Amino acid sequence: MGRWEPGARERLAVAALELVGENGFDRTTVAEIAARAGVTERTFFRYFADKREVLFSGGNALEEFLVGQVAKAPDSAGPLDAITCALQAAASEIFAERHAFAKQRQAAIDSNPELQERELLKLAALTRALAAALRDRGIGEPSASLAAESGVAVFKTAFARWVSEGVSDGDVKDLGQIISETVAELRAALNVGREGSAGGDRRFG
Amino acid sequence: MGRWEPGARERLAVAALELVGENGFDRTTVAEIAARAGVTERTFFRYFADKREVLFSGGNALEEFLVGQVAKAPDSAGPLDAITCALQAAASEIFAERHAFAKQRQAAIDSNPELQERELLKLAALTRALAAALRDRGIGEPSASLAAESGVAVFKTAFARWVSEGVSDGDVKDLGQIISETVAELRAALNVGREGSAGGDRRFG
Repeated sequence: MGRWEPGARERLAVAALELVGENGFDRTTVAEIAARAGVTERTFFRYFADKREVLFSGGNALEEFLVGQVAKAPDSAGPLDAITCALQAAASEIFAERHAFAKQRQAAIDSNPELQERELLKLAALTRALAAALRDRGIGEPSASLAAESGVAVFKTAFARWVSEGVSDGDVKDLGQIISETVAELRAALNVGREGSAGGDRRFG
Repeated sequence: MGRWEPGARERLAVAALELVGENGFDRTTVAEIAARAGVTERTFFRYFADKREVLFSGGNALEEFLVGQVAKAPDSAGPLDAITCALQAAASEIFAERHAFAKQRQAAIDSNPELQERELLKLAALTRALAAALRDRGIGEPSASLAAESGVAVFKTAFARWVSEGVSDGDVKDLGQIISETVAELRAALNVGREGSAGGDRRFG
């Protein structure tokens, strides 16, 4: 994937984010979004079912990209490594030049419970897709689902930290680097306690 | 907590599950649920806002229980260990004698997308509550959230396996044992691949 080349679809997504940022989700209409993007309402509905969908239009492409990258990860990569590879690739090929866009989108979602629910559903679908991609690599269950859940938790956490930084694409930390750090923090958090040893088959209670 | 003592609230929950199992969620009415539980509709609405809520009535109690258990985990327990302790306690004190109930509830949820969304929202709320409980133990972010996400992934996975087993409380594997195995599987899935070494700060791609 190359640089961001805004066609009608992406102009509509940008316009929607700007308007939601200015006026809130509930007070933004499809007519306003279309007008700001310089297209007709009819064009809007050629791309999106409703005004919620416009904020999630990148989700399917991201899912497809990550699933493809998991398939291409080196044979030697463990389940979480394969997902980390895919997230790193998305960081450099999809997100690197879209920090401002991602930040604005996150602000819109954070301000609206209905959009938060939609985001949660999309992430659940992404988790299922990544688990299926790991099973295609020969990973059994429950390992595939557990690694997929962990990978999506890393993505959410790293992404939240990335969008909380800076205001322009130039002065923010690299998302790929934040993903690496978050994976390391996940592994550290999942080690057993100060008196224990690695391996999780102990009983508690 | 002791044995299961069904009052009106739990009779309503049981009746709702039976009827949803027999007729599906959409074709079950509050009037039927109340009648089967031997109470009036008015009593139903004293306990539950709607017929969806009756299937999720245990969620808040479970969340409260788990948060309390995380607080009581030994000082030496790491973040995931603290949550595992809590899940083990819930397995023996809450779920041990409710396998048939849990199985029926899961079947109802699996058959209805609207209920699946509700379940997803409840699990997201549980994740946030567990992360807050870990922060109260002095765990920083993002470790607290990452461990909470992992703990809830373990719970979902172990619970799904548990309810897929047997038909009565007598012939099923212990949920606590399944939780222990799932934690071990999570840790194994998060290890680096065959050629790598433990520790997650490597870059990929």
